[in-house]
Amino acid sequence: MNSLTLILGGARSGKSRRAEAILTVLPPPWTYIATAEAFDAEMEARIAAHRARRQAGWETLDAPRDLPEVLSRARPPVLVDCLTLWLSNLMLAEADIGAATDALEAALRARTGTVVLVSNEVGQGIVPATPLGRRFRDAQGVLNQRMAALADHVELVVAGVPLRVKP
Amino acid sequence: MNSLTLILGGARSGKSRRAEAILTVLPPPWTYIATAEAFDAEMEARIAAHRARRQAGWETLDAPRDLPEVLSRARPPVLVDCLTLWLSNLMLAEADIGAATDALEAALRARTGTVVLVSNEVGQGIVPATPLGRRFRDAQGVLNQRMAALADHVELVVAGVPLRVKP
Amino acid sequence: MNSLTLILGGARSGKSRRAEAILTVLPPPWTYIATAEAFDAEMEARIAAHRARRQAGWETLDAPRDLPEVLSRARPPVLVDCLTLWLSNLMLAEADIGAATDALEAALRARTGTVVLVSNEVGQGIVPATPLGRRFRDAQGVLNQRMAALADHVELVVAGVPLRVKP
Repeated sequence: MNSLTLILGGARSGKSRRAEAILTVLPPPWTYIATAEAFDAEMEARIAAHRARRQAGWETLDAPRDLPEVLSRARPPVLVDCLTLWLSNLMLAEADIGAATDALEAALRARTGTVVLVSNEVGQGIVPATPLGRRFRDAQGVLNQRMAALADHVELVVAGVPLRVKP
Repeated sequence: MNSLTLILGGARSGKSRRAEAILTVLPPPWTYIATAEAFDAEMEARIAAHRARRQAGWETLDAPRDLPEVLSRARPPVLVDCLTLWLSNLMLAEADIGAATDALEAALRARTGTVVLVSNEVGQGIVPATPLGRRFRDAQGVLNQRMAALADHVELVVAGVPLRVKP
Repeated sequence: MNSLTLILGGARSGKSRRAEAILTVLPPPWTYIATAEAFDAEMEARIAAHRARRQAGWETLDAPRDLPEVLSRARPPVLVDCLTLWLSNLMLAEADIGAATDALEAALRARTGTVVLVSNEVGQGIVPATPLGRRFRDAQGVLNQRMAALADHVELVVAGVPLRVKP
């Protein structure tokens, strides 16, 4: 029973809630891999709000950068929330994004059980004003394409409602 | 014959035109609730272009901030254009967005007749550079989710073509 | 065998690849109309990456601004990549966008054979900070609507996967 689902959506579109709903129809415990790192009060409040919503039955693992390794040893079913913060952390650390994506793909291919990945759609605004903004937008687009190619199911969440993209 | 429809889309995606088309298959008169306030020439031109496109048979009510009240006394069918400007006006006035959304939900639940709400998708670009931009993006995402949960129908307009999101 | 397809999507969503896939099921040669102009190293690298991916069988024509004329004399099937850069070039040249769009529509109506247009969705972020940004976003939205109205098929590419928008 292997299945990989990619949940895409804009900011505050209900992506995390949709991803949690996919896991929680399965029997607990569920593994939540968090990629967020709290640098400031705004981020801390966001993380706390996400944690508060999750019910009992979740085990949380932190993987701000070492997502492939953490994913490999996580007990299924697994929710990864989210690839956008993972990518952002990698870029801040000036890591090799291509190599990290290769490692993530290898970890996903080697896994058994249900995995749900959450990621942001960030490419539907005007061209970002800064080179870093453009680089991030491009890297996120490429990462989403690679994950979607690997995934069994892809959904785009719009105002809390999932639109089926694949299959 | 109660029905609530939420029309989502990006800027200049044809949302208003689509919303008008839903109302104008019903017999006139139709009520247009405008949330725009003209602060400058750019906004005035935009409002004038919208008004010019609407044919005879429309009665226009203004509700830059008091949308729940105006909606409660409007004669159906009703088009609200749009929630994004309403939210923006509320934020500029430092109003309580949560309380205002509760009031809007209550007004929508109490209504009879056809209501069509227009709102923007604003969360699919990169993270906004300013705290206000991030706050607005998040508030719009939450508002869209709450309206979509309440709505009978949700559409995402892409280049003038409606994509059915719900049901 | 006339058919006009519009491929929409965000940055790095896989639009170009999808458009190429539509053409390359037809027998070669295929005509690629490039609207990109290399102003800087970032743009040169992007153009080179696009060219490198295209296999033998493609003839490339450049049309940074004179797209209607180049399209009229191009041998089908034709891929136009992309309308967003064309629009950007026209705005930089302070050209009349309405007149240019009229000319493009006339050229498309007069054509025979398969034409695939690639264009960006740029209106789903927050309101751009600059007047130029807002003007570009609005012009792109209007152009996409006009092309979608003319097109036989419209697809929105999400993470490399085409979503059918029209018909």
